Amino acid sequence: MATAAQRQNADTLTDRVAAIVGAANVVAANEAMAPYLTDWRKLFRGRARLVARPGSTAEVAALVRLCAAERIPIVPQGGNTGYMGGATPSERGDAIVVSLARMSRVRALDPANYTMTVEAGCILQQMQEAAAAADRLFPLSLGAEGTCQIGGNLSTNAGGIAVLRYGNMRELALGLEVVLPDGTVWEGLRALRKDNTGYDLKQLFIGAEGTLGIITAAVLKLFPRPRDRVTVLAAVRDLDAALDLLSRCRTATGDALVSFELIPRIGIDLALKHIPTTLDPFPDPHDMCLLIEATAGVPESGLRAALESALAGGFEEGLVLDAVFAESETQARRLWHLREAIVEGQRLEGGNIKHDIAVPISQVPAFIAKAMAAVHEVVPGARPVAFGHLGDGNVHFNLAPPEGADLDSFLAEAPRLAPVVHQVAASFAGSISAEHGLGQLKRDEITRYKSTVELNLMRTLKHALDPHGIMNPGKVVQGG
Amino acid sequence: MATAAQRQNADTLTDRVAAIVGAANVVAANEAMAPYLTDWRKLFRGRARLVARPGSTAEVAALVRLCAAERIPIVPQGGNTGYMGGATPSERGDAIVVSLARMSRVRALDPANYTMTVEAGCILQQMQEAAAAADRLFPLSLGAEGTCQIGGNLSTNAGGIAVLRYGNMRELALGLEVVLPDGTVWEGLRALRKDNTGYDLKQLFIGAEGTLGIITAAVLKLFPRPRDRVTVLAAVRDLDAALDLLSRCRTATGDALVSFELIPRIGIDLALKHIPTTLDPFPDPHDMCLLIEATAGVPESGLRAALESALAGGFEEGLVLDAVFAESETQARRLWHLREAIVEGQRLEGGNIKHDIAVPISQVPAFIAKAMAAVHEVVPGARPVAFGHLGDGNVHFNLAPPEGADLDSFLAEAPRLAPVVHQVAASFAGSISAEHGLGQLKRDEITRYKSTVELNLMRTLKHALDPHGIMNPGKVVQGG
Repeated sequence: MATAAQRQNADTLTDRVAAIVGAANVVAANEAMAPYLTDWRKLFRGRARLVARPGSTAEVAALVRLCAAERIPIVPQGGNTGYMGGATPSERGDAIVVSLARMSRVRALDPANYTMTVEAGCILQQMQEAAAAADRLFPLSLGAEGTCQIGGNLSTNAGGIAVLRYGNMRELALGLEVVLPDGTVWEGLRALRKDNTGYDLKQLFIGAEGTLGIITAAVLKLFPRPRDRVTVLAAVRDLDAALDLLSRCRTATGDALVSFELIPRIGIDLALKHIPTTLDPFPDPHDMCLLIEATAGVPESGLRAALESALAGGFEEGLVLDAVFAESETQARRLWHLREAIVEGQRLEGGNIKHDIAVPISQVPAFIAKAMAAVHEVVPGARPVAFGHLGDGNVHFNLAPPEGADLDSFLAEAPRLAPVVHQVAASFAGSISAEHGLGQLKRDEITRYKSTVELNLMRTLKHALDPHGIMNPGKVVQGG
Repeated sequence: MATAAQRQNADTLTDRVAAIVGAANVVAANEAMAPYLTDWRKLFRGRARLVARPGSTAEVAALVRLCAAERIPIVPQGGNTGYMGGATPSERGDAIVVSLARMSRVRALDPANYTMTVEAGCILQQMQEAAAAADRLFPLSLGAEGTCQIGGNLSTNAGGIAVLRYGNMRELALGLEVVLPDGTVWEGLRALRKDNTGYDLKQLFIGAEGTLGIITAAVLKLFPRPRDRVTVLAAVRDLDAALDLLSRCRTATGDALVSFELIPRIGIDLALKHIPTTLDPFPDPHDMCLLIEATAGVPESGLRAALESALAGGFEEGLVLDAVFAESETQARRLWHLREAIVEGQRLEGGNIKHDIAVPISQVPAFIAKAMAAVHEVVPGARPVAFGHLGDGNVHFNLAPPEGADLDSFLAEAPRLAPVVHQVAASFAGSISAEHGLGQLKRDEITRYKSTVELNLMRTLKHALDPHGIMNPGKVVQGG
């Protein structure tokens, strides 16, 4: 319960925040605040003094100056689609949440420079559409694209299904505008491919999950819009065959592969079981499939023939067992629907234990074998649902309960299984969070896998940029 | 002249350094040190207490610990091919130079992961060859590739002629090993495409010119080796036509362009005049040419037809005046020879005034027009030799003297002209050092073009990581 004095302070703060963003953009009522105080999976629940919805960089800066002066913690929030609780305030209730949602302008789009300058609150899907309207491609694509915001994509260095070709969000940003922890604005909105004039400051804020400043705008790279797209589902013998095929396809297409997604049998079965609109395109049930997509700039580019030839070569050598090429956009969408239905199928099955692992691409087969052996020592019979971005070495190494086992008691094993899986990933010099970040969920666990030198470097940066520790405290850096 | 006490100290230091790297790897005699104390253009001359040539990361770390304890400045040096004096010690003579040349091992090459792990002293060209031997491509390519070292390429975030397709050195590095200013070793040699577990520390050291630590090894990205290569020299109407053609070619090839280099008439004339092995392949002298190269993964990829069609479209609309396709590798090399001869031709003509500018690609024509107008107010009749990486918006905006004017008195104008050109670049939100870095040459000038906020952020980083200021002092950051 808040004391009268605290309530008085809160009122004063509300007034002062309202003076900056306008009373209509202060959310202080408990019910109205609720959606900002939990993540979409409802794993984390926090409290806050209020939610501020600034409409401009100047308003964000004024908010941060106020918070810096009063030592009030700030939790920046975008579309609130993260997995790690990075945008959820702590239970202490001393923070304010700063929602960037109102800052959703496309400030500029320069087709000849292949760039657009957008504000942090822009929805990803709308940015894809804005680029397409200018006959350009903005390639970042991920499940939450209808809701997630560019500021969050930058702050978590988002990955998704086109990293193989276009890189992570870090590679897609040329410049940033950031409100620093003292409320000054760093205007780094450069739209240059080359600029070697000192430290590349934007790199600090990309992937920092709001712990070093608030990203308010960015210059994003655009690309020519593809005119030809080949989508194929291939059944392969095993993971080694899949990796061999990856190299063959990269070479055959001149590195035009955009996606190379691993789909295991159990994923297809879960999709077929729970999502009536899905269909296994193969007459025989195959253990392991790959969803492969490549694009080219011109229609009838020869890409189809190149991929057909790569797959035919794999077929002759027994690597590829079957393959279905999408003959239309509808068929391509249907194949992607199967891939996406795996995520939903897992949810409808009741959930499972998730790990977001990356290892060197060449090590994926060994990682999965070793990780399953380690998992089976803890839960015999646990079944892997290892799917995802094989082309990036990024496997969503999820675990389903043994056949017939009770789901809830299996899920209760999650805290025991995570370190087991992560330890195996570490033994391959892998990552325990390939694209999801650390947030609060993995903030402590990461300290087991990073060296003291690295953890100290992170703390040094945090303290140098945010000496009072007001920027998204409790996320990413322990003691930060 | 050194006093006896200083000499005594120096002897002690030599002994202590010899105990770390071995007496054979300490260079202390003046004559032997000379090549390490000046840059290859001989613009800068410094002094040093000695040059140490460590052979391992442990030796580098021990050297840095010694220097940290004694507050001895350290100047890391690679192939010593930089333009900015970043690897040349100051005239104070209090520093030691640490040459990484002996650390030249390829530690690992993983074709299936498309990575190689190499030490800082590896020569770039040898790394290209090592990758090719494994049927992979390491795409970084630049004039000094036969001499420059990977550590220097990383520390200056090298660019070159394939940035359009593959990015700068920053985009080509997945992990680093760095000796920090206190002599501890950060082992960040990850070979992952995705790793969102905290701040991306490697970004601090890439492009930092050795001011935050010494890069000792790196994991580099490899790519499929191209099997088809189309090289064409196209004469275009003007710069606007060139930009239009850039978009057409990017689209037509499915973004397979590797190089899109601007070659002006004056550059061709200088090449033809001074380099007897060059040849203008066109019957008519054209004002502006483009050297365009694209690659594909399979032979007979259709790339040639795609580029022919893009150029034919440009020809019909009057953008393209003529074009010569290389019909063999020999012909391709001959076209590249013409491009490279421009650099040598300028040198043999007696030199000129160089600026390494980047602006948004769309702004290159306006930049050149405005910059020439500004230059002519200072030196009427000065002639632009604007050439280079148009596809990246990176123009080597060099200036030749007016026809018939005295070269030396023109070169004396360099200090007056640089701020004029740089101011115009800044007015387009451009860069005054697109790929050459700051070193000591542009360390002070950059302060005119960066905001106080940005300069303070750079100083904050420098002080946080190198509190005693021993790492390459006097470079990049003023007061650093």
